[in-house]
Formats: sequence, C-alpha cells, structure tokens
Amino acid sequence: MMPSDAAEKFLQGDLVEMPRPDCLRHLHASRVGRVAYNTDEGPVVVPVNARVHGNEVFLRTRPDSQLGRALRGGTASYQVDGFDDHLQTGWSVLLQGEASWVEEADLPAYVSERPVPWAGGDRSVYVRIRATNVTGRTLLP
Amino acid sequence: MMPSDAAEKFLQGDLVEMPRPDCLRHLHASRVGRVAYNTDEGPVVVPVNARVHGNEVFLRTRPDSQLGRALRGGTASYQVDGFDDHLQTGWSVLLQGEASWVEEADLPAYVSERPVPWAGGDRSVYVRIRATNVTGRTLLP
Repeated sequence: MMPSDAAEKFLQGDLVEMPRPDCLRHLHASRVGRVAYNTDEGPVVVPVNARVHGNEVFLRTRPDSQLGRALRGGTASYQVDGFDDHLQTGWSVLLQGEASWVEEADLPAYVSERPVPWAGGDRSVYVRIRATNVTGRTLLP
Repeated sequence: MMPSDAAEKFLQGDLVEMPRPDCLRHLHASRVGRVAYNTDEGPVVVPVNARVHGNEVFLRTRPDSQLGRALRGGTASYQVDGFDDHLQTGWSVLLQGEASWVEEADLPAYVSERPVPWAGGDRSVYVRIRATNVTGRTLLP
C-alpha cells in the first residue's frame, strides 16, 4: 500500500539536506507521523496523531500505555516522510528532542488545534517532545 | 503527500494486534521501510531500501555514514506501515533486533534479491538486523 515507485527511488536518487525552514514546514503540516523511543530491545517506532508548533510536538495517549510511560521523560523523536509517485519526489524529516508529560491546562494557547483524541480508554495524557535537533532530506526530481 | 484520510483514522479506529505471520508477510513484501537506531539526541528514523527474509533484515549503506557506523552493532529496528484510503484500513509492523555488518560473501543464499545499491559513494557495507521481537497492529475497516 506504500507508493513504492517513488519510495524505491527515494534512496537511489539525488538526496540533499533539507533547509530547516522546509523541515519545519513539513512538520507543521503533518497530522500523522511516527514517534520513536528507545527500549532495551531497540527503538520502538509507531504511527501517532500529533500536532507540531514551533519546535514542539504534542500528542495524546494513555498514561498506562507503553507509549505513555516511555514518553514521560527522556529522549524521543518524531518522523514524517512523503513520496509522490507522479512527481517522483520524496522527503523525510526527523525531529529529535526531549519528551515530557504536560497538563491540558499547560498546553500553549497557540496549540489551537489540539491532538485528536484516540478511541477508547483513558487518553488523558498530553505528551510534548521539545526539539533539540531537526533534520531533513529531499529527493530531487 | 501522505494519504491522510486513512492515516488520520488509523489511530482513531479499532486497533488490534497483528498475528505474527501477518507481520512477517508485510515485512517480506516491503522494499522500503524505516530503520531506527538510538543516539544521545534520541532515536534516528530514516527511510531505507531493505530486504527481509525470515527474521532478518538486510540493507546496504556506506561504511563511513552515520547509518553505517550506527548499525555496526547494537540494537536497531525496522518499521513498515501502510494506509489505504479507499478501504480505510491501515497497519504498522515493527521488527526490533540486533544489527551487525555482514560481508557480501556471507549473505545467505536465500537472499536472492539483494538490497539495491544506493546512488553514489562506497556502498560496500551490508547490514543485517536479526529480529528479537516482531510486533504489528491493524486498523479494522
């Protein structure tokens, strides 16, 4: 189901570093990305609904989930990518940072469109990942 | 460029654990996924061309790249996912394991379709990630 034609070319074509403003533009436009955190068995990478504002990612999860526990503190990352088969282009952006729980009341006012709640259970924890490093790369057409 | 309709629903719908045979089927069908490894600044997640056989992932990179150095040893993961807007389904599979360099001559004979070389530079290093843990989840339509 992945658009494989462009994806296959993604790593075979001319890759260039993406300027930081473009990285942030892609991050801000994203509604779904992949959050990553480390475990003894290796990094966990899972799709999440999230919102990015400035250099901060916000997402919502259950406090008792593995994701919730893992993102209570420490380093974590948020990744988005895209492939366009028609234009045969692609890009990938990675935000690395520090995760912490924040209270709903503590969410910055500028996060106008809050992370959508996920179905079922107690989804009361907001997680913030504050960027320490943002990088990206683009496949030139 | 991400098919956002299904993706948005991915985390709002009914998620179920994916049976291991289905996880392996998705992994084996993949030609592009995301490899993840940990750093002091948090996990790095980047798209890669790779081939999966059995419980092992094989990819090719430069020995002097950050990816090549990071995957010389230690834990690493390989992630694939897919969203189908028409069927409004989605899935995500994660393989966690141990990374190591392997010589081309040491590649198992059953890796009939070797990882495609990437453009430019010395791409002489083959990396293997041998699974210690495989998990997945599916969004029911």
